[in-house]
Amino acid sequence: MDFSSKLLENAVHEMSQLPGIGKRTALRLVLHLLKQPNGQTMRLASALEDLRNSVKFCSRCHNISDVEVCEICSNPKRDDQVVCVVEDIRDVMAIENTGQYNGLYHVLGGKISPMEGVGPQELTISSLVKKAKEGDIKELIFALSSTMEGDTTNFYIYKQLEGLDIKTSTIARGISIGDELEYADEVTLGRSILNRIPFENSLKTN
Amino acid sequence: MDFSSKLLENAVHEMSQLPGIGKRTALRLVLHLLKQPNGQTMRLASALEDLRNSVKFCSRCHNISDVEVCEICSNPKRDDQVVCVVEDIRDVMAIENTGQYNGLYHVLGGKISPMEGVGPQELTISSLVKKAKEGDIKELIFALSSTMEGDTTNFYIYKQLEGLDIKTSTIARGISIGDELEYADEVTLGRSILNRIPFENSLKTN
Repeated sequence: MDFSSKLLENAVHEMSQLPGIGKRTALRLVLHLLKQPNGQTMRLASALEDLRNSVKFCSRCHNISDVEVCEICSNPKRDDQVVCVVEDIRDVMAIENTGQYNGLYHVLGGKISPMEGVGPQELTISSLVKKAKEGDIKELIFALSSTMEGDTTNFYIYKQLEGLDIKTSTIARGISIGDELEYADEVTLGRSILNRIPFENSLKTN
Repeated sequence: MDFSSKLLENAVHEMSQLPGIGKRTALRLVLHLLKQPNGQTMRLASALEDLRNSVKFCSRCHNISDVEVCEICSNPKRDDQVVCVVEDIRDVMAIENTGQYNGLYHVLGGKISPMEGVGPQELTISSLVKKAKEGDIKELIFALSSTMEGDTTNFYIYKQLEGLDIKTSTIARGISIGDELEYADEVTLGRSILNRIPFENSLKTN
């Protein structure tokens, strides 16, 4: 692409560094900003700068937070003996939205992935193991996505906790509520039969 | 969505103001920026600020430009008696990429659209009419998209130029090169038959 303006070219180039945004989309977004009042661009730029400069992570669960200890970790009504291990803040938000969980979280910041150069030391695993060894946690719930990376990460943490008196569980995998059996993939359907639950239990939820 | 951080919420909110970017995508983009080195966010923010603060438009064709008169308008090798009327910079870039056009451009900045509150005075039509009346232009090529808004804009400009000795033309509409006739829409196919050209002419292009 040949641009008539270096400033425009630079803005488009930086915008197109974002994932899933190509040069054409970036140009469309930048031209949109140019058509809007000045303030919109300034607010976007300063919101990004402020976040990057002042972002903090909760010292206990490593979730993004504006304060030293996040609202969830500092809430005395929550059960601090149950910890749900998740990949990032989006998982925390998703589980919080269900209203079904009253424990704490531990945000790993990713999954072990040798292909992408992410090893255990890039994640917050040692902080989780330390918390576990200090003896506060009774149950650890693994809620990573069930990909190879997720399973590897679960197993790595599981091994680190060997010998400790901590119950570990993973969230249930099965057929989504409302889904038709005929369209379900075999692995999920197979697991949902193996891990079937007493019918009475299915009446209890909600 | 409930965010654990006001800074994050603010960045996601501003990002989601961009067209085609919802809250979830905005969150994904912002979290991506947080995982990258500090510099990437800063470069994006300052590129947007710089563009917004220092953007200039060519005083002749109204295209985005870093200088008073853009490269195309100031190029003595180009034919300044032919002016192609386009909607925005993307159309200029598209036509320049063909390498088939040696005239100048006039960037309207949009199309007349009462539905979106865009009237002739929001566009650079009066500047185009002034240029035409000063007697420099021999041919005006309309290259707006053939929507209702595009046709209205073409006709509005055409009416303003009545009585002047200026040839007006529109770019050819027809079946795209390589397209199958059976899949073409009727209007396009109909127009391409009505506006058929001598066979010898089709041999000349490239």
